[in-house]
Order: sequence, then structure tokens, then C-alpha cells
Amino acid sequence: MAHKKIKVGIVGGTGYTGVELLRLLARHAEVELTAITSRGDAGSAVAEMFPSLRGYVDLVFSDPATVDLSACDVVFFATPHGVAMSQAQALLAANVKVIDLAADFRLQDTAVFEKWYKIPHSCPDILRKAAYGIPELNREQIQSAQVIGNPGCYPTTVLLGLAPLLEQGLVDFSAPIIADSKSGVSGAGRKAEVATLFAEASDSMKAYGVAGHRHHPEILAQLKQLAGQEMQFIFMPHLIPMIRGMLSTIYVKLSSQAKHVDLQGLYEQRYQHELFVDVMPAGSQPETRSVRGSNQIRIALHQQAASGYLTLLVVQDNLVKGAAGQAIQNMNIMFGLPETMGLEIVPLLP
Amino acid sequence: MAHKKIKVGIVGGTGYTGVELLRLLARHAEVELTAITSRGDAGSAVAEMFPSLRGYVDLVFSDPATVDLSACDVVFFATPHGVAMSQAQALLAANVKVIDLAADFRLQDTAVFEKWYKIPHSCPDILRKAAYGIPELNREQIQSAQVIGNPGCYPTTVLLGLAPLLEQGLVDFSAPIIADSKSGVSGAGRKAEVATLFAEASDSMKAYGVAGHRHHPEILAQLKQLAGQEMQFIFMPHLIPMIRGMLSTIYVKLSSQAKHVDLQGLYEQRYQHELFVDVMPAGSQPETRSVRGSNQIRIALHQQAASGYLTLLVVQDNLVKGAAGQAIQNMNIMFGLPETMGLEIVPLLP
Amino acid sequence: MAHKKIKVGIVGGTGYTGVELLRLLARHAEVELTAITSRGDAGSAVAEMFPSLRGYVDLVFSDPATVDLSACDVVFFATPHGVAMSQAQALLAANVKVIDLAADFRLQDTAVFEKWYKIPHSCPDILRKAAYGIPELNREQIQSAQVIGNPGCYPTTVLLGLAPLLEQGLVDFSAPIIADSKSGVSGAGRKAEVATLFAEASDSMKAYGVAGHRHHPEILAQLKQLAGQEMQFIFMPHLIPMIRGMLSTIYVKLSSQAKHVDLQGLYEQRYQHELFVDVMPAGSQPETRSVRGSNQIRIALHQQAASGYLTLLVVQDNLVKGAAGQAIQNMNIMFGLPETMGLEIVPLLP
Amino acid sequence: MAHKKIKVGIVGGTGYTGVELLRLLARHAEVELTAITSRGDAGSAVAEMFPSLRGYVDLVFSDPATVDLSACDVVFFATPHGVAMSQAQALLAANVKVIDLAADFRLQDTAVFEKWYKIPHSCPDILRKAAYGIPELNREQIQSAQVIGNPGCYPTTVLLGLAPLLEQGLVDFSAPIIADSKSGVSGAGRKAEVATLFAEASDSMKAYGVAGHRHHPEILAQLKQLAGQEMQFIFMPHLIPMIRGMLSTIYVKLSSQAKHVDLQGLYEQRYQHELFVDVMPAGSQPETRSVRGSNQIRIALHQQAASGYLTLLVVQDNLVKGAAGQAIQNMNIMFGLPETMGLEIVPLLP
Repeated sequence: MAHKKIKVGIVGGTGYTGVELLRLLARHAEVELTAITSRGDAGSAVAEMFPSLRGYVDLVFSDPATVDLSACDVVFFATPHGVAMSQAQALLAANVKVIDLAADFRLQDTAVFEKWYKIPHSCPDILRKAAYGIPELNREQIQSAQVIGNPGCYPTTVLLGLAPLLEQGLVDFSAPIIADSKSGVSGAGRKAEVATLFAEASDSMKAYGVAGHRHHPEILAQLKQLAGQEMQFIFMPHLIPMIRGMLSTIYVKLSSQAKHVDLQGLYEQRYQHELFVDVMPAGSQPETRSVRGSNQIRIALHQQAASGYLTLLVVQDNLVKGAAGQAIQNMNIMFGLPETMGLEIVPLLP
Repeated sequence: MAHKKIKVGIVGGTGYTGVELLRLLARHAEVELTAITSRGDAGSAVAEMFPSLRGYVDLVFSDPATVDLSACDVVFFATPHGVAMSQAQALLAANVKVIDLAADFRLQDTAVFEKWYKIPHSCPDILRKAAYGIPELNREQIQSAQVIGNPGCYPTTVLLGLAPLLEQGLVDFSAPIIADSKSGVSGAGRKAEVATLFAEASDSMKAYGVAGHRHHPEILAQLKQLAGQEMQFIFMPHLIPMIRGMLSTIYVKLSSQAKHVDLQGLYEQRYQHELFVDVMPAGSQPETRSVRGSNQIRIALHQQAASGYLTLLVVQDNLVKGAAGQAIQNMNIMFGLPETMGLEIVPLLP
Repeated sequence: MAHKKIKVGIVGGTGYTGVELLRLLARHAEVELTAITSRGDAGSAVAEMFPSLRGYVDLVFSDPATVDLSACDVVFFATPHGVAMSQAQALLAANVKVIDLAADFRLQDTAVFEKWYKIPHSCPDILRKAAYGIPELNREQIQSAQVIGNPGCYPTTVLLGLAPLLEQGLVDFSAPIIADSKSGVSGAGRKAEVATLFAEASDSMKAYGVAGHRHHPEILAQLKQLAGQEMQFIFMPHLIPMIRGMLSTIYVKLSSQAKHVDLQGLYEQRYQHELFVDVMPAGSQPETRSVRGSNQIRIALHQQAASGYLTLLVVQDNLVKGAAGQAIQNMNIMFGLPETMGLEIVPLLP
Repeated sequence: MAHKKIKVGIVGGTGYTGVELLRLLARHAEVELTAITSRGDAGSAVAEMFPSLRGYVDLVFSDPATVDLSACDVVFFATPHGVAMSQAQALLAANVKVIDLAADFRLQDTAVFEKWYKIPHSCPDILRKAAYGIPELNREQIQSAQVIGNPGCYPTTVLLGLAPLLEQGLVDFSAPIIADSKSGVSGAGRKAEVATLFAEASDSMKAYGVAGHRHHPEILAQLKQLAGQEMQFIFMPHLIPMIRGMLSTIYVKLSSQAKHVDLQGLYEQRYQHELFVDVMPAGSQPETRSVRGSNQIRIALHQQAASGYLTLLVVQDNLVKGAAGQAIQNMNIMFGLPETMGLEIVPLLP
């Protein structure tokens, strides 16, 4: 009997998370790319839009209005917010798993969702059963989930950066946790906009979303859950003239008992079996390029003795561990495959 | 009687602060470029090394060992640390003013200087009379000074960003002040080093100097003086793939009385007569390119109501307001010229 | 009696040539910026869209439908093709000079214009009297013109690069002249398009417009006029990941009599009084950054003895000598001002 | 019996071709990395210098003076010119194959070698038996060779671009072939030099090596061999602000019989079984990023009907098909492995 691969559909394949899913899935040993949709480009070959895929992807974009995804085993949504939740019900009924790379299944509090995304949540029942897809924090729930809310890029860095401290109760919450995050421009997506033109975004940088970024409530909700308590959290994203890459510099006040803990050792132990989380040697200053194109996330710890603060440096590729790679990691878990399958990629340096 | 221009000498003209001094001074109406030295390139034309200066600078690099700078009215040192203090005595004796763009005259505490720069301070008497060259904080002292310690690039952003708060006693020092600073690569200078090669530093970013950066003690000393008290200060510099430009994101806990103060108004008033300090409208997110090539510094305020923190965004061109431009601004003050002379440059955008 | 400055209007001020005109004109001693129009942004402050202009430009965008430009002395059109020719008649009637930075007045052959720009030419009479605005080739005609067709960016490099050879009859036309040109991304304008997004155009390059670029007929027409004969011309533009800057590498077969000519000397002599044309020393390899932000154009000659070819390297800033700077140079000539006024800018390096 | 992998040694592992060999070989199913040498970094872990390799490469740099490479099956030289030829004799005697990524075994004419590389050739006998390692032109010779001269990055693009024409005698040699080539900065290597600093090479471009580039004689020798005749060849390399990527724009005069040939069809047929050579559809304008990180080379043809010229656009990743990838392709052939093993990498886009 022929070996049966996982049939994968992708809704919304013309953005950066879409083409990144294609790059990774095209070489995944247990995946058969079945369908990829695009409203604007239905009928044209995927490899015509993305010549990097010539020879690896033979698919033609399908019209989302007419394609039948019910024959898929899993569908990835690389779409704007709101699309996945409009189709999840039907797919689940057809026994198709759903991995949403947008925000539809990230926030359990629908009031918060509606405040930040300006649309009502159309399937709170499905949301309640959805797993928040950071395997290193949530593996068991992912294993049995039918729907994954794949996390935002920023949240992945902040949550994996802080988890060991929060799990051990080593944070002093009298001061806010501050995440000063920096992202490459691909994080803004493949939309035609003046602000992200080369001649605007190159050789320059800025903070953005200062009045309020959608990843703030997502991070805060998860932080509270990890800590089991309320807290203040300041989040400040910045746009950096690089294509891929994200660095979160996190400032956190340590509790008094943290003084007696070997934090470097704590982190190394917490992540010792996590193949995609690399706790760097003490004193490291990880570069974003050290994870370019890979699903790796690297964490370095720096203690400011005088002030009692810990500074965490967390780097990832925003399109891989921050999006498509983590989605595939979730898929691997959901289908009982080795978690690293299709993701054993050496970062591209230089 | 012929009008007498200021005779300017530059020691160490082959680095980025040197060529930036030349770019600006070449068009300064009251300056006559008299001599520029370089150990390695003595005898060759300046415009051969920097073709951008063809037609504007006719000088030939002089040998520092043989050139006589005593005929200058002022000498800029765009050299490694330690050079200015070895020559200051002789120049002052010849009635030549000294503006050092390195660190020799920035730190009044020579023990701190020696700890961070690994050389003894050779002229503490001169140091005591030197002015720390941020005109907006220190104009009177600069007016009468013979020696200027031109500030580091990072300190300029942090000090001008925080001064209005500190002067008014609006900071709660129970939490550390945090400066998460980002710099273009030109800040590392024009030295042949692997870490700042294009293929290393492009399309990537990182924190650096985490274990301790020389601008930390410089900033801290000035902050203490502005505040009139001790405090904790966390400084985290980052290297960004852009040529010029610096953004400091500053997190500061406001005192309780700050709640009753219109901080935006306070800043606008504090800097209303400062032509190079631009307090941006509320809600602004200044880009570094908005000051590219100019002596402008732009400050935006963002209040985090919930946590009681203020976040300051401060941008400058690290080679202009952060180095050569501010040095010329100091020169203008020392010689009684209009402070903006030679510095009225519209930033280059795009 | 008060000195009367030139009243300048700009139609279409939100693109890169528009903001570049503003950057340069804001510091022009004899110009009074009177009006700037934008359909989409009427009513908003120019310096709000371009914070780099804060403190230098106080204008508000006017609605092009209602603004009266007849009080201007000169109007620059930094608009899409077709706009200038629709307004030129009325402006000329009001004694307002017109400088069009688009293509309406570049091609004397209206059939060629209509083939490439897909619109009929609406004022061939005005076109006939318009001057093609390269001062170094056409100064006298510009002096007395009421309408200037400001040249394309690529044509400026190719024509100034080849003029001395063509004027002296030193080209062998049995082989085509080949211009392999490279442009920074700002040349594509400030339009929201996927192809020029940072994440698309950065860290990559490509040829474009290979099937036919609009500057080909413009260059060819001028080359023929300079040579007084027909010829073959191959033009191949490339998009380079830099904001500004243009390099044309020109391959031309020399005639047999050229062997007896000192070409380096010929070029130096031809341009000895041209302040914006810099013939580099023999052996030079000019960088585009050596002219960044300035109106300079630099030319280097390299002879391939074996093949009888000459290779010319010509660099300019595409937004300055290739657009706004040259337009102002033309304005200076039309109004009898010193040709360099407002354009004596030292290139920004690094 | 345990499966025996190929034991690989790398001499000179700290440059870009070295780390690229490591990136690719680390995931090669039939390779066991045995030793990697570095004079300056002997004793330190490879993954310490290149954190991108953490988890993939456990090797420590060996001292080249003491390491015994005779147990290897093949040794790659990622060294300066001259090193491979000094060690080849001994390795061959120990039955170790040699793949040199420098120039020692590229030029059969030792006089030419000595003229351009300024060192005498120390083993002309070995040179005579060495194969020039472009598999698509030279597969049979590579299969049986003990020593490979892995081609320069530029030559690979020019030769694969022109081979179909030359093999069919479709070039008119009365005009020179012109290659206007553009390379990313990694092509200059990982040496500390001012000219390739980020702040020098970013946001700018230039031609270089105009007086004579070492790849000129290498290309010319191979072109002559392909054509079976003398010719003129003009080569003009340019430095582009991107990390990786190379585009050669090649201008070639077609012979009169070429008019009757379907050149697009000719190229498609010539390369139809070559997995790494992709003839793009007619009208294509390939971007360098479309091959980023992969061993692919893409060729597009554009005919200039009027002039009788063909323009070829050829893109590759200079570090992969232009260096390390092609070297591994050669290794695969030498050891009878599938030619694509370890090289089936989807390019990284964006």
C-alpha cells in the first residue's frame, strides 16, 4: 500500500507567510501540497509570481470562491484577520485541521479581539477549543487540537524569552516588563504601501505602533497566564531596515529570590530538549542573521547587578519561528510526525 | 581691512567624524580650513581619499609629527581617545582652542575615565576647565571655554531627551532609567574590522557592548548632575544596518507629581528657542532619516498611562548632532558666531 | 525697495522629485516658495508628510483644482506625464515659465511621444519652442526658453558621458553604443507598488524594462542630434538596492582617428568650465555615493586597447542632477542667476 | 556493515566560501565532516565563530600546520590562491581528492596564471590533469578527475550564459563580447578592509577592477575553448550593495545564421537535463534573490532585433553556484553520488 502523505491546502498564498509556507513545505517529506488559493491571482502559476519556487512548486493559484478544501488534511490560513474564522466551521466538519497564521484564534477573550481587530468573533465555540501554537509552552494541547491559533511574531520572542522566569516565579511585578522589539520589514507583509517602500524604509529606522500594537494584548494575555497574575507590560516595536529578523530586548525586574538562582542554568535546563530554542552561552549577543531562514530562536541573558534587572536578548526569523516555521512545527505535532521534520535548515549566513 | 576667518585645524581627518567635519566646514562662511593631519596618508590629497570633497576641499593631509597647528584658532580632534589630551597643553599655550570629539574631556572623574579607557589622564587641570559640549544644556560654560569635550553620540540623545524631566524633578528614581539605543554602523568608525563589513552587518542586527559600553558612565555622570542625585541607569546599544542615524528609546518612570504636568507642553517650552532641538507633535514616531545629514535632533513623547512610564523617542544623525555638527555648533558659540552658521542643512530624504 | 525673489510654484509635491525640489529650493537665496499642490493631500502641511522639512517649509498643500499659479514666476511640474502639457498654455499666457520634470517636453517627435507615453501630445506648438534642459549641452536655448523639458535621469548620464566623443566625431557607428545603466530605487518614484517594497527590492537586483524603456527613444533622439547621424543604441536599465544614485556604464566603439586623440584631455577640456561635470582622473572608478545629495555628475574613462572600445563610467544622484537639481540649474539660467545658486552642496558621504 | 560516508576536510574555514561549504555539507546525507582548519582560530569551536552553525557543526578549527588530512576522501580548499597547489601533491599521494575553490587549478596556461596571481605555479603536472569544474560543460572530465579547479563566480555566469551560442557557432566575433557583471559584497570575502565596510559599500555602487580583473583571463580562456577561436572580450565587474547574488548582463553580436535559429528553444534544449540551470521563459528579468542560498543559475534571453545583438541575463548566488555549491556538485560527480545531493535547497525569498 502506498504511503499516504498529508494533504495540505493554503489559503492566501501570495503574501510572505504564504510563500514561506511553500518554501518549507515544498521540501517536507510527508506533505503533498494540494491547493493554494489567491483571489487576485487565480489561474496563474505560483512559480510565475515567485520564480524562487520554479522546479519545486507546480501548483496554480485556485480561486478561493470555488476551490474545495475538504479533501485536505490540514489547511493553513495565511490571510488577513477574519478569513480563517469564516471557514473553520466547514473545514472542521469535513475533518480538516486548521492552522491560522492570523489572529482569529489567538485571543481567548473575544471582547479584546473585537476591540483590537474591529470585527466580531464569529465562532467563539471553536476559539475555546483552539490551541495557542507555541509548542514549547503548549505542546500537549497542540497535539490534540483541531484548530491552532499560530502566534504573532513578536509574542513568540517575548513569551519564550520570559517563560522560564515566569514559570519559576522570579519576576518582581512592581515594575512593568518592557519589551523593546525590532523587526525586519517583511513583518509588514507584501502589501503595496508607501511606508514600506525601499526608498522609505531603507537606511532608516523608527518606532511604530506606539499608540498600541495588536500584539500587546496577545502577549499580555499569555504572560498573565504564565505568571498566574496581573502585571504591567510595555511593548515598543521598531521597524528595522532588514528583510527578515526580529530581536526583542526584554527588561524585567527580578524578584528577590532570583538572586539565589542560576538563571543561565535555569534557562538551559528549561529548554534542553527543545530543538528550536537555543540558550546562548553567557555573555552572548545574538545577531538576527544567526537564525535567517531557520526555525531557530536564540536567547541570551544579561544581568544588571546594580539595578536588579535582567535583560533578555531573543532573536528569531519573523517569517519562520515567528510564522510559517512554527505553523509547520505545530502541524508536525498535530499529525504525530517528528517535530523537526522539514525544518532542519541551517541558517543562511552571510 | 580684510575680514579674518577662523583658522581651523583637524587632527585625524580620515575617519567618519573627520570627513564629516570637512563636509560641514567646507561650506562654513567664517571658516578657513588650514590643516588636516593623518599619520597614514600624509602627502595625499584629501579629495583623493574622499572624492565627494572634490571641488570643495583642496587640502593635502599633513604629517601630525611635523605640522604646526599653533597658527590655528581652533583645532578639532577627530582621533582615538588619548590624542587630544597629549596636545592640548601646547595648543592652549599658543592660544588655540581645542574641541575634542573623542572622550578625553568628557568625564570629570579621572578614575572613571581611566577605568573605561585604560589610559591615565594626562592633564586633569585642563579637564577641570573643559566644558561638556551640549549647547542646549551648557551654553554659558561653552561660551567661555578653551577646551570642549564634545559628547558621545548616544549621550546627546539620552541627555537632551531626559533633561526637561530631570530639571523639573519629574522622575521617580525607584525604577532604573532604561535607554534602548540603536545606531547606524558609521558609529563604529572607519576602521577595517570584520564585524562591520557589509556582508556581516547588513540585513541583520544585534545588541552589542552589553557587558558595558563607554557611554554608560558618561551618560550617568551627566544624568546625576542634571538630577542632583544618584540613580540606576540601564543602557543597551544596538547596531542597525543603516549608515547614519540613531534612535534612543528611553523608558522612565514618572514621579507622582508628573501626573499633573503637561509634559508635551513642558518639552515644547524648554526647547522653544533651541533651533536644533525639535519637539515633535504628540503621537509622533520620528524616523532617523528625518534628520539625515543635519544637526537636528527630534524628540517625541509617549505616555504609558497604566504603568506610569514615559517613553521618549529621540532621533539624530550620529555623525552630525552626535559628533561633527555639534562640535561646529560649539565652535560657533566659542567664537561668538550665530549658532546655526554652516549647519542650516535640510535633511536628505529620501 | 525690497528685493524681489522668484516666486515658485510646484505642481505635484508628494513624490520624490517634489520633495527634492523642496529640499533644494528651501535654501535657495533667490526663491520664494509660493504654492505646492497635491490632489490627495490638499490642506495638510508639507512638513507633516515630510518631517525632514520641519522648520524649513511652512507651506500647506493646495488643491490643484483651485490654486491660482499665475502669480508665480515659474512652475515646476513634478507630476505624471501629461499634466504639464495640459496647463502650460495657460501659464505661458500669464507669463509664467514652465519646467516639466516629466516627459511632456522632452521628445520633439510627437509620434514617438505618443507611441511611448500612450497619450496624444496636446500642445505641439509649445513643444517646438521648449528647450531640452541639459545646460552643459544646451545652455543658450535654455536661457531664452519659456518651457523646459527637464531630461530623464538616465539620459543625463548617457548624454553627458558621450557628448565630447560625438561632438568630435570619434565614434565608430558600425557597432551599437551600449548603455548598461544602474539606478537606485527612488527612481521608481513614491508610488505604493509591490515591486519596490523594501522586502522585495532589498538585497537583490535585476534588469528591468528590457523590452523597451521610455528613456531609450529620448536618449537616441539626442544622440542622433549630437552625432548628426543614425546609429544603433542598446539600453539596459537595472534596479539596484540603494535609495539614490545612478551609474551608467557605457560601451562605445572608437573610430580609427580616436586612436590619435588624448581622450582624457578632450573630456577635461570640454567640461573645464562646467561646475557640475567632474571628469575624474584617469583610472578612477567613481562611486554613486560620491555625488549623493548633490548636483554633481562624475565621468571616468577607461580604454580597452585590444578591442578599440572606450568604457565610460558616469555617476550622478538620480534625484538631483537626474531631476530636481538640474531643474533648478535650468531655472537659474532662465532667470539670469548664477548657475550654481542653491546647488553648492557637498555630497553626503558616508 | 556500516555505511561509509565521504570524509571531508576543509582547509581555510573562516571565510565565506568556507562557512558556506559548512552550511551545505552539514546537511549532506553522504558526508562526514572530518576536519576544518584555520591558522588564526585553531582550537576554537566553529559554531562559536558562526553561531548559525550551532547544533549542526560540532567541529573545532584545527591548526593547518599539524592536522593530518590524509584520512580524508576529499579536501576542499577555501583558501587564498597558492595554498592548494602547495598541498595537492601530498594529498593526491594519499589518495585524497582535491577541490580548490581558489584559482590554482583554473588556468591551464601557467604564464597567464603567474602574470595575474604573481606567484609561480608549483605543480604544472597536476594542473594539466585537473578538471575545470563546471559540470554542465565538463561533466565527463570531472567524473574521472582527482583535482578540480572550481571556477570563479563570474566565469560560471558568463560561460553558462554563452555556451549554447558558442557551441553552435552563432556568435559574430567582429564585435567584442561584453559582460557587464554585478556582484554582491560577499564576493570580496571576509577580510577586514575599509572598502567593504557597511558604511562604505552600502547605499552606493561602483565598477571596480576596471584596469583588469583576474576573472578576465579565466573567462577568456574558456570562451576560446568553447568557440574554438580567438575573440575580444570586455569584462566590467561592479560591486552592488547586497550580501549575495550576481547578475551578468552579457552583450553578444549574433552571426547572420543565428537569425534563423530559435535561440530560446536552443537554450531550453541545451539545458533541459541540467537541474541547476534554469532557462527562464522568454521576456523574463530574473532577480538575484530568486536564487538566494541555492545552487540554481537562471538565464534569460533578450534579442535586440535592430542591432543584431543578443542580451543575456544570468543570475546566481555567488557563494553557491558561484563557489561552494558548485564545488559540492563536483564532489557528488567525483564520488558517483546523485549530482543534486545536499543541494536541493529552495531559494530564500523574500
